[in-house]
Amino acid sequence: MSSPISKEDQFAAWYETMLEAGEVVDKRYPVKGMPVWRPYGWFLHSSIMELIEKQWTLQGIEKVQFPLCIPEFYLRQEESHIEGFKAECFWTTKGGDKDLDVPLALRPTSETAMYNMFSLWVRSFRDLPLKVHQTCSVYRHETKNTRPLIRVREIPWNEAHTCHATREDALENLRMAWVGYKRVIEETLGFTGLILTRPDWDRFGGGECSEVMDTIMPCGRVLQTVGAHYLGQKFAKACDIKYLDEKNEFQHVWMTCYGVSTRLLAATLAVHGDDTGFILPPAIARYQVVVVPIIMKKKDSEVVFARCEEIMKDLQEAGIRATLDRSDQKPGAKFFHWEMKG
Amino acid sequence: MSSPISKEDQFAAWYETMLEAGEVVDKRYPVKGMPVWRPYGWFLHSSIMELIEKQWTLQGIEKVQFPLCIPEFYLRQEESHIEGFKAECFWTTKGGDKDLDVPLALRPTSETAMYNMFSLWVRSFRDLPLKVHQTCSVYRHETKNTRPLIRVREIPWNEAHTCHATREDALENLRMAWVGYKRVIEETLGFTGLILTRPDWDRFGGGECSEVMDTIMPCGRVLQTVGAHYLGQKFAKACDIKYLDEKNEFQHVWMTCYGVSTRLLAATLAVHGDDTGFILPPAIARYQVVVVPIIMKKKDSEVVFARCEEIMKDLQEAGIRATLDRSDQKPGAKFFHWEMKG
Repeated sequence: MSSPISKEDQFAAWYETMLEAGEVVDKRYPVKGMPVWRPYGWFLHSSIMELIEKQWTLQGIEKVQFPLCIPEFYLRQEESHIEGFKAECFWTTKGGDKDLDVPLALRPTSETAMYNMFSLWVRSFRDLPLKVHQTCSVYRHETKNTRPLIRVREIPWNEAHTCHATREDALENLRMAWVGYKRVIEETLGFTGLILTRPDWDRFGGGECSEVMDTIMPCGRVLQTVGAHYLGQKFAKACDIKYLDEKNEFQHVWMTCYGVSTRLLAATLAVHGDDTGFILPPAIARYQVVVVPIIMKKKDSEVVFARCEEIMKDLQEAGIRATLDRSDQKPGAKFFHWEMKG
Repeated sequence: MSSPISKEDQFAAWYETMLEAGEVVDKRYPVKGMPVWRPYGWFLHSSIMELIEKQWTLQGIEKVQFPLCIPEFYLRQEESHIEGFKAECFWTTKGGDKDLDVPLALRPTSETAMYNMFSLWVRSFRDLPLKVHQTCSVYRHETKNTRPLIRVREIPWNEAHTCHATREDALENLRMAWVGYKRVIEETLGFTGLILTRPDWDRFGGGECSEVMDTIMPCGRVLQTVGAHYLGQKFAKACDIKYLDEKNEFQHVWMTCYGVSTRLLAATLAVHGDDTGFILPPAIARYQVVVVPIIMKKKDSEVVFARCEEIMKDLQEAGIRATLDRSDQKPGAKFFHWEMKG
């Protein structure tokens, strides 16, 4: 970045330039909406996902991994769900030279993949609540303009899905989901948003009620950073998830699901950054301290580097993510570089 | 498992039964070769991947994330590579109702996705070595019988890819890869195998030389548990990865790649298990201690549970993964269950 771009005046240009210059993603990969995550950017996103996962572990939500591919007949089980997603599914249709027996969707979200298995796993009230989450990517063939981390076709995210014996337990679980999200977003990432209930026409396909966090971006637009859905018994009926209650009668479960994606990183970068670059919350920063050697005379170089190495190692041993800039740039250029990267 | 199966006499049946009974995977998901990873199993696999990642971090190999989808023209760049993989690629051909402009392969391995980007990232000798790894899944439309963790169509794995200025640096890097793998496999997972060079007809498509670890399974068959490939300059030429050397002349880089998959978990479970169930290395065990309350008289139940809770918490605070079996099974059934799960 030879001439910094004003974040306030030209937010969109600032954002796109910074994601490339800050080595978050590389958009030159030739599949639209699927950028490459560079080490610096992947560390930031993974760190946010780990913070979310830690909240779910504390809440007894277990980590699973479901297949990427969802058979077409699963997606069609819940009518409003397939309506919501059919226009944006990627379909895998061939294995080698041959057509597959059944077209497989790349998961646009995992409800139908998971809930058919839940119907096998839930037998009695003793199996409830069933609470799982996974960190993976979902795939949506967006036709609008793509934008890194915000609107892409490959979306790294974390999704949680739960089954409960009663409506009240499900609603209480959603309340706890917001406690977890707010802890990470407000206390660690340092931004917030408005928690809103979406109108019926804009709610998640297959849900009863969608609550979202809308974060206001520097350009004045809102970005949906969290989606949390009360599913009632719609999917439980569509996928036949039933339990035997204490009176030995079958009941459908009550469900919730919620997820967050790379938009958490997008909002973190957008809200805190300034014209000189990113400003990262220390909890997710790739490097919390960068040691920049300042060589006044060439003959001192070895002494200065040795001392810098020591400082870096002391910091690392104290549990701080520290690095030493060994490149042969001048200190000014190094400061500029690390200012930009946050 | 009401009647235990003899591991020695009927290894295949023992293995398949144990993976389901031990809640590693659930094969009832209706896509062949793509089982669901249950929390217990996913913890084991993820723990092994974390051990591998830790080795790569120590060796300065950086973690990236490349897109799942590889355009057909990338895969075709290296002739022997596409020959090796074309029969087993899954192809995504549609987005919504429309045909995609270019068919996209679900990565069968990531060489061509990565190496075209490497050609943009490598400019001068200062950019070398370039060493990256990623943890993801690869997809292969196996036509043979599938078998969980060993031969599947969705393969969770870790792959590393490196570029070097000289042939010697590349070979030295491969030597270090084996140091890392052996540390995890021999010192932590507690098994080993024969390190063999594959004959030309069986070598990785696009490589110069393939070294593998073949682990002998209890049934006497061998399982390839590690693959490490010296790529020479074949891909560097196919994907045009060049650097300016210190004399300002362009040179192609020398490359290596290597990977391990869920087969490490398969071998761990197969080698150590016995007729009563899994025997897990403590480093990857989901629970290192299970507290089983023994209630002699019903009225003592509360006191015993309270004491068990205390013991569990003390262990957890000491950094041990401990759990308390709160189910209403009898102690004998609990012992049987946890014996089986390792």
